[in-house]
Amino acid sequence: MNTPRLALVHRLPASAPDDVTALVQAVDRGEIDPRAIVAVLGKTEGNGCVNDFSRGLATQALKHAIARLARRDLDEVARDVAFVMSGGTEGGLSPHWLVFEVRNAPAAPAAPAEPETGPAAEGVPTLAIGVAITPAFLPEEIGRMPQALRTADAVHAAMRAAGIADVRDVHYVQVKCPLLTRARIAQAHGRGRDVATEDTYLSMGYSRGASALGVALALGEIAADALDDARVCRDAGLYSGRASTSAGIELMENQIMVLGNSAAWRSDYIVGHGVMRDALDVDAVDTALASVGLRMGGELRGSGRERVAAVLAKAEPSQTGAIRGRRHTMLDDSDIHASRHARALVGGVLAGVFGETQLFVSGGAEHQGPDGGGPVAVIARRAP
Amino acid sequence: MNTPRLALVHRLPASAPDDVTALVQAVDRGEIDPRAIVAVLGKTEGNGCVNDFSRGLATQALKHAIARLARRDLDEVARDVAFVMSGGTEGGLSPHWLVFEVRNAPAAPAAPAEPETGPAAEGVPTLAIGVAITPAFLPEEIGRMPQALRTADAVHAAMRAAGIADVRDVHYVQVKCPLLTRARIAQAHGRGRDVATEDTYLSMGYSRGASALGVALALGEIAADALDDARVCRDAGLYSGRASTSAGIELMENQIMVLGNSAAWRSDYIVGHGVMRDALDVDAVDTALASVGLRMGGELRGSGRERVAAVLAKAEPSQTGAIRGRRHTMLDDSDIHASRHARALVGGVLAGVFGETQLFVSGGAEHQGPDGGGPVAVIARRAP
Amino acid sequence: MNTPRLALVHRLPASAPDDVTALVQAVDRGEIDPRAIVAVLGKTEGNGCVNDFSRGLATQALKHAIARLARRDLDEVARDVAFVMSGGTEGGLSPHWLVFEVRNAPAAPAAPAEPETGPAAEGVPTLAIGVAITPAFLPEEIGRMPQALRTADAVHAAMRAAGIADVRDVHYVQVKCPLLTRARIAQAHGRGRDVATEDTYLSMGYSRGASALGVALALGEIAADALDDARVCRDAGLYSGRASTSAGIELMENQIMVLGNSAAWRSDYIVGHGVMRDALDVDAVDTALASVGLRMGGELRGSGRERVAAVLAKAEPSQTGAIRGRRHTMLDDSDIHASRHARALVGGVLAGVFGETQLFVSGGAEHQGPDGGGPVAVIARRAP
Amino acid sequence: MNTPRLALVHRLPASAPDDVTALVQAVDRGEIDPRAIVAVLGKTEGNGCVNDFSRGLATQALKHAIARLARRDLDEVARDVAFVMSGGTEGGLSPHWLVFEVRNAPAAPAAPAEPETGPAAEGVPTLAIGVAITPAFLPEEIGRMPQALRTADAVHAAMRAAGIADVRDVHYVQVKCPLLTRARIAQAHGRGRDVATEDTYLSMGYSRGASALGVALALGEIAADALDDARVCRDAGLYSGRASTSAGIELMENQIMVLGNSAAWRSDYIVGHGVMRDALDVDAVDTALASVGLRMGGELRGSGRERVAAVLAKAEPSQTGAIRGRRHTMLDDSDIHASRHARALVGGVLAGVFGETQLFVSGGAEHQGPDGGGPVAVIARRAP
Repeated sequence: MNTPRLALVHRLPASAPDDVTALVQAVDRGEIDPRAIVAVLGKTEGNGCVNDFSRGLATQALKHAIARLARRDLDEVARDVAFVMSGGTEGGLSPHWLVFEVRNAPAAPAAPAEPETGPAAEGVPTLAIGVAITPAFLPEEIGRMPQALRTADAVHAAMRAAGIADVRDVHYVQVKCPLLTRARIAQAHGRGRDVATEDTYLSMGYSRGASALGVALALGEIAADALDDARVCRDAGLYSGRASTSAGIELMENQIMVLGNSAAWRSDYIVGHGVMRDALDVDAVDTALASVGLRMGGELRGSGRERVAAVLAKAEPSQTGAIRGRRHTMLDDSDIHASRHARALVGGVLAGVFGETQLFVSGGAEHQGPDGGGPVAVIARRAP
Repeated sequence: MNTPRLALVHRLPASAPDDVTALVQAVDRGEIDPRAIVAVLGKTEGNGCVNDFSRGLATQALKHAIARLARRDLDEVARDVAFVMSGGTEGGLSPHWLVFEVRNAPAAPAAPAEPETGPAAEGVPTLAIGVAITPAFLPEEIGRMPQALRTADAVHAAMRAAGIADVRDVHYVQVKCPLLTRARIAQAHGRGRDVATEDTYLSMGYSRGASALGVALALGEIAADALDDARVCRDAGLYSGRASTSAGIELMENQIMVLGNSAAWRSDYIVGHGVMRDALDVDAVDTALASVGLRMGGELRGSGRERVAAVLAKAEPSQTGAIRGRRHTMLDDSDIHASRHARALVGGVLAGVFGETQLFVSGGAEHQGPDGGGPVAVIARRAP
Repeated sequence: MNTPRLALVHRLPASAPDDVTALVQAVDRGEIDPRAIVAVLGKTEGNGCVNDFSRGLATQALKHAIARLARRDLDEVARDVAFVMSGGTEGGLSPHWLVFEVRNAPAAPAAPAEPETGPAAEGVPTLAIGVAITPAFLPEEIGRMPQALRTADAVHAAMRAAGIADVRDVHYVQVKCPLLTRARIAQAHGRGRDVATEDTYLSMGYSRGASALGVALALGEIAADALDDARVCRDAGLYSGRASTSAGIELMENQIMVLGNSAAWRSDYIVGHGVMRDALDVDAVDTALASVGLRMGGELRGSGRERVAAVLAKAEPSQTGAIRGRRHTMLDDSDIHASRHARALVGGVLAGVFGETQLFVSGGAEHQGPDGGGPVAVIARRAP
Repeated sequence: MNTPRLALVHRLPASAPDDVTALVQAVDRGEIDPRAIVAVLGKTEGNGCVNDFSRGLATQALKHAIARLARRDLDEVARDVAFVMSGGTEGGLSPHWLVFEVRNAPAAPAAPAEPETGPAAEGVPTLAIGVAITPAFLPEEIGRMPQALRTADAVHAAMRAAGIADVRDVHYVQVKCPLLTRARIAQAHGRGRDVATEDTYLSMGYSRGASALGVALALGEIAADALDDARVCRDAGLYSGRASTSAGIELMENQIMVLGNSAAWRSDYIVGHGVMRDALDVDAVDTALASVGLRMGGELRGSGRERVAAVLAKAEPSQTGAIRGRRHTMLDDSDIHASRHARALVGGVLAGVFGETQLFVSGGAEHQGPDGGGPVAVIARRAP
């Protein structure tokens, strides 16, 4: 922890789920050090639901590309880099990659030739990234208290890794979590245990929900005694305003990435967040912007557009069937999945604010913000 | 024309395409005079494409309801009231009816018991509505110059009917236009004539396009000599910033409704518009708001929300495949029609601005605004 | 019951959900007596799921048409004629109406000028139709034993009305049943009762399931003591091979129509059925055909095609995720609802057998046939 | 050509687009020689339209697996093995791989321990496979006569490679062909040339169509002078009853694989075909079956099911909007692409005949069979 570090965020376009051209070019230009990449979050153009193969195709392409560029073994890359693919670019959302790097800060704080890597002055909190993983879960622990509690521990570990002491300095927690399969359920049954749900699809929601509640515990957003197994995916009043969780079949542990601000870092970026009360809550975006020194309006959409490095938000249809008293039809549409409508809506609301469609809006928001709302985080370049 | 008139706009929720409860209640409460209704614009929850049966169901239900409430014959209602149903409530858009009434202003300008019908002071321009129809077209005229030119004439006739002399006082022109069917094409062929397109689906676009160009001609937005048959649905540089056109199988003429402001009226409403350059162009919304004495921001979404009576906009995917340089995927999605994505996007952008999802956002925007953009009109209650 | 009756079936094309042209023409030609119509089953072209407005539009159009043609009051028609609309014409299925008439047989068995109405010889079992309704259910009874038991009673009543004594002579039982709404659930709660499910969409399945189990009870397909509330929608081993049930919001009772053969009738039609063990089970179709004097093969698809008056079948994806050991993808497709895939599949299988796409294939097959299979009934013109 | 060869076909299940488990196991069991694989045809579970990423994911997974299993370089595998992925498993179609091998026949015709590789007696025509490629096309040649003519030449070359002299012994010709991209069109324009279509999506159809017409020319199904540029994708009366063509972005030449029967081979399989006149034409399937010594009926669906090694068919909605005089709704459904309906329908028809859902039914049938119909080929194990 003695050498100061710096975090970089690169927002790169993708012309297809397996298009890594922009990544290769950024490496070629020396803007990205492929060995420093710690995570890639991707917005891909599948349906974001069960049969979305754009996510798998993207992960494959990115893994192979980074392995080749970094001259590392494929397995090593798979182990050391977090790949979180969110399917669904409904409305005007634009497929893109968010590539996160962690580097050691240059020893001498000389005047930077390239603003993106310019070190911050000492003592100013800047973007900090910390990662941690939980132990592997047993199938019967998924979607229940053990998953929540160990996620909370891992969030604290990731904060320590990032040099963040105060939970108020945490603005976004990405969690990748496991799901139940037929085989995993059978394994639990074989040991005489039941599972949170026998529906493998629903198990994704339970895992996301318990993980988000773990984040809420870690950040003090809910009290430990407020939580028990029966509240997971049922008590919508319990949530984290900073968690974004997604479930995948390829792991049995929770992988956590914490984004916050820390004076121990010398990044050229800062991060902030707000909690949207409903899908139209642009005031929450204003809160997020204010905390990174920006504000809504024409300037943000114009010259200020360059200062925004990444926008991350969750979207879900309100279960009440209404938004501010007006009926929505998302939950009754048997042609388009409700989560697709919700991403389109929140994507549109945010696109109007930012004048930008490269927005990481993802679905599956169990216990991630209030019903129909969700967290929104903004990573911005620091003011010059 | 001697008796001053007043126009009323009622925005009513619909819980289903055939739900006319709110209309019946408004009549029961004396807020709507069913015999004064001149038009109903409806946002219904079908897919807004070929097989959208929510529009037909809504039209049937509304016609029967108005005939019953007004104690008029069904055919009479069909003849005298314009029904324009726009399918597609993607994202968070909320199904609703916009009911337009034209009444004679009360003789004595006594203090109004009911604010909605309160007369404006003399000489102040307020919402004016005028309707007109073209002669019936021959099949070979649809999507071509005859349709455009006669639409232009009818727009002028509707302006006269509304007492609007200056084209700058026109802010929204709704056109309902015919389409080609197999039988109509055969009829033209039988007389040795060809038609604009032999594809009946495409004929809807040609009819909408030629109609919009007719509006543009009438309003001086394009020069008459700039137009010929070959430019319809091809030269995207020609458009009206105030036209909204929709094609239906049940008519062979164009039905025109002009919304503008006129000092000859005593309405409690005014109308304004802007032209969105692309789907994210909230500055155009600001222009529309400014012209009706409102402005974007927290107040509009809060207490000012009540002053907005109706928002009408067109949405289409940009044919470039990009928005402000970012790729969109609307045109490549074989699961969701591009026009559905576009409505979701523009609906989201506007919902963020207005804090409201009862927005009349419709698709099919040939020559109605620039590529990827479109007109946006706002009808507001006048400031007290 | 003394005057012999005859039943007629008319299969009529529909060019749109509200196209009643073929019905009007058949009445004009004297082929249909509009006052004798007892039921219309319609295959309409919506998605067959929640937001299918083609069903409502069709019902409206048919009701108005029959009232006009029969010079009867709209309410009377709504009361006396069963309208059962099944949405979804996936694959090649063709939208059509099945119009059922019940008439008194002509007194003198003179040589019929028109084969469709020719009376059968005395004593030969021919198509018989019987209808009955249950008392209205309380919300808490829907999807539970009371609904099943009273449906069983009503099936027996409909058999008596049809003059069918032996359950083996019943080949198809159409049931229209209620569903739960928010208001109905609240009403039950207000009386301290719980309901089968608080999910209004799921309530449709429970109501269909309990109704089908009622048919199975009535026909002796399952034993009364095999049944309890907990088995509804859970024990797939219990089913009727002759029930077809559909849920609608507009009623609180079950409406039953029994189709069978009875020597008391003088119809020119007979009905038979088979039970498809899975979606590919054409041998079950052969069984159905055999019982009406037909067999699969080139003749059926060719000259024999005219003898088939109606084909009615149920379709559902197998919950195992496989058909004859091969994986299907219906349950994992988030773009197309599983029931739509299932109708397309069964529709294709049957279309290959019959050389015909006017097939009444409907979804929602809870307890109507085994998992992944379902009943198939054939109504045929009797051999000359 | 002196050493007799034998062709093998393996039909393997896939539990996901990137599931190569069955392939790996077949290699491990010694049933497949990975170095002898010449082609893999895959039915994958995407939408089969523009944004179908299951095809790319499958190709990636198969290429990597075969390279690993055969210990060959990835580029070599890409060059030597044809990968043809057809997306879309609508209705009950089951995702699977058809792996084609070409081996030298064992020297001594000893009694085979394993029936699948048992050599046929000398002089008996058995399954023969030949491949060939055209020279690379210029963009302006795609969808036009040069593509057709050179495809015809390449079909003849592939026939020679397969030792097939008589065109009547050819039963299925798979063609992979290029498409136009923005860049390719610009390149043609740069040289002052126009292209068949400037719509990149439509260019796929033109390329498939011209390629199919090339096959028709080669097989004498149409006369050379019947063909010119203007007939491609316009004159539906011209077609091949044995072509199956698919367009891909990764090549500029046409890759041809001919399947036929030749006495120079010692395969344990034979191939036959029929031409479906419409989507319900099971008589054409009977023709195909008869030519490989099988017939429709209960035996085929039962014990005979094992004798069928592969079924390959094309499916498209009839452009007339009807099947045997009955309206279909495929072309009017804006929620489900018409080609998806068509695959579901033909898949269902064939599944009923074969009692099997591992059927290679693909869409995009320009000039591949008559309007609404298409070729169907059956590869069968020879009778013992």
